[in-house]
Amino acid sequence: MSHFQTTRRVEFCDTDMAGIVHFANFFRYMEAAEHALFRHLGLKIAGELPDGMHYGWPRVSATCSYKQPARYEDELDIRVTITQRNSRSLTTTYEFYRGETLLATGEMKTVFCLFPPGQKMQSADMPDAIAGPLDRAISTPAP
Amino acid sequence: MSHFQTTRRVEFCDTDMAGIVHFANFFRYMEAAEHALFRHLGLKIAGELPDGMHYGWPRVSATCSYKQPARYEDELDIRVTITQRNSRSLTTTYEFYRGETLLATGEMKTVFCLFPPGQKMQSADMPDAIAGPLDRAISTPAP
Amino acid sequence: MSHFQTTRRVEFCDTDMAGIVHFANFFRYMEAAEHALFRHLGLKIAGELPDGMHYGWPRVSATCSYKQPARYEDELDIRVTITQRNSRSLTTTYEFYRGETLLATGEMKTVFCLFPPGQKMQSADMPDAIAGPLDRAISTPAP
Amino acid sequence: MSHFQTTRRVEFCDTDMAGIVHFANFFRYMEAAEHALFRHLGLKIAGELPDGMHYGWPRVSATCSYKQPARYEDELDIRVTITQRNSRSLTTTYEFYRGETLLATGEMKTVFCLFPPGQKMQSADMPDAIAGPLDRAISTPAP
Repeated sequence: MSHFQTTRRVEFCDTDMAGIVHFANFFRYMEAAEHALFRHLGLKIAGELPDGMHYGWPRVSATCSYKQPARYEDELDIRVTITQRNSRSLTTTYEFYRGETLLATGEMKTVFCLFPPGQKMQSADMPDAIAGPLDRAISTPAP
Repeated sequence: MSHFQTTRRVEFCDTDMAGIVHFANFFRYMEAAEHALFRHLGLKIAGELPDGMHYGWPRVSATCSYKQPARYEDELDIRVTITQRNSRSLTTTYEFYRGETLLATGEMKTVFCLFPPGQKMQSADMPDAIAGPLDRAISTPAP
Repeated sequence: MSHFQTTRRVEFCDTDMAGIVHFANFFRYMEAAEHALFRHLGLKIAGELPDGMHYGWPRVSATCSYKQPARYEDELDIRVTITQRNSRSLTTTYEFYRGETLLATGEMKTVFCLFPPGQKMQSADMPDAIAGPLDRAISTPAP
Repeated sequence: MSHFQTTRRVEFCDTDMAGIVHFANFFRYMEAAEHALFRHLGLKIAGELPDGMHYGWPRVSATCSYKQPARYEDELDIRVTITQRNSRSLTTTYEFYRGETLLATGEMKTVFCLFPPGQKMQSADMPDAIAGPLDRAISTPAP
């Protein structure tokens, strides 16, 4: 299964008094990696369709399992894999490595939504211009 | 099943450009609610045993499911339930309400660990002084 | 000079690996105290004027001086004083106490702005409905 | 005056419901830029002296002035200048640019401190191994 890889360095303010990265920050890291993948695919996490309708990708769920702590100045390799694309939703998984050591794994599920003016957002089928790049990312062999 | 309830008001800096609470902040909210429960039970989330050994509760996993967005100045009722206590680990679940509306649910699993000086932390059985209040919280009927 | 007081408990995720509240979080604390003052005065930090125009209070500057560290579970008393109200701007100062100990002081300057649809935000004179409560807060003797 | 430059991309979670980078996050950005400068100079923001004494650089003050908002995915150029080095303290200034546009400026003052075991931290003269690289950074002509 193909994956997209990005890196980030742990910042001082990401740590807590236990001396390690605060667990909630792994979710910020996942999101930034997800957005890097979207940029890599030429997609946007929020924008406008050709007809002017605004869209976005609210979260349905997020989860993380912690195996080893990450620390200040660690350089993390984050591997993102699109594991499922349905007509309206997307599931991505994340692996956090420091060198060869797997520190944490995570998963996020998001849903494609339209924001009609003055109405509540509503889930919708992704247009081909969005579904296409996601499907190609799924089927591309790993680098 | 008994639960412990705490409230918090959403702060401006908890929101993101989508106008709603950023999904990662629900994990900060869960943690603060968990710590409020510990205080309520006379326990500490990090401290020293009578023999001087330091202990703490690192996370094993955290998950959240999002049903409705929370917004600036919303007053959230957060219900915490201890759903499982094993000899070395604790599972707690969270329900976020705004009035009658359930916004999100979550779960965290933590493990009791000792921090011997100069060594890596290691999981250990909870002493009775910690296990006792947790067990009583589990068996107390809901208020 | 009158002041408004609010309290907050330091949360675990507010700390960093130095074991103390990360310095940037004092700005979050100041903002939440400022917003509590606004609520106390019946004002909103962002909203709509009777003519439907949206308004807000972007920051012009923020500063903090640190005297003593704050730690996990500290209960902080935060005193907010409106030190200056000009036609378009507001200056507030902050004192952070733990008991009798002054931990930090800060100041923020914000400007009243309108957000005309499709245009850049622009500073404007505050309407009387906003200026009035602010002026009364300035002239009220301290509790 | 010489400066050190680093860049960062604004992340989604750095924004707030006003659609712009939350003002407190500029302080996180300043700190990360300061730490990048320290790494560039071969220095550490926290560590151990040859005699085993731990040291660090607690904040004395931090300030930021906001001129234009920063937005999601903006690439910020952050210029760091060491403006003063006293025997025990260091003052650095920050300029945030998006392209040619100056968005914000800031300043932080920190003090060199030792952490004797079991005692309160205390300010101290910087050893030559730390003062030297800082002074060379001050006197180097800008790139």
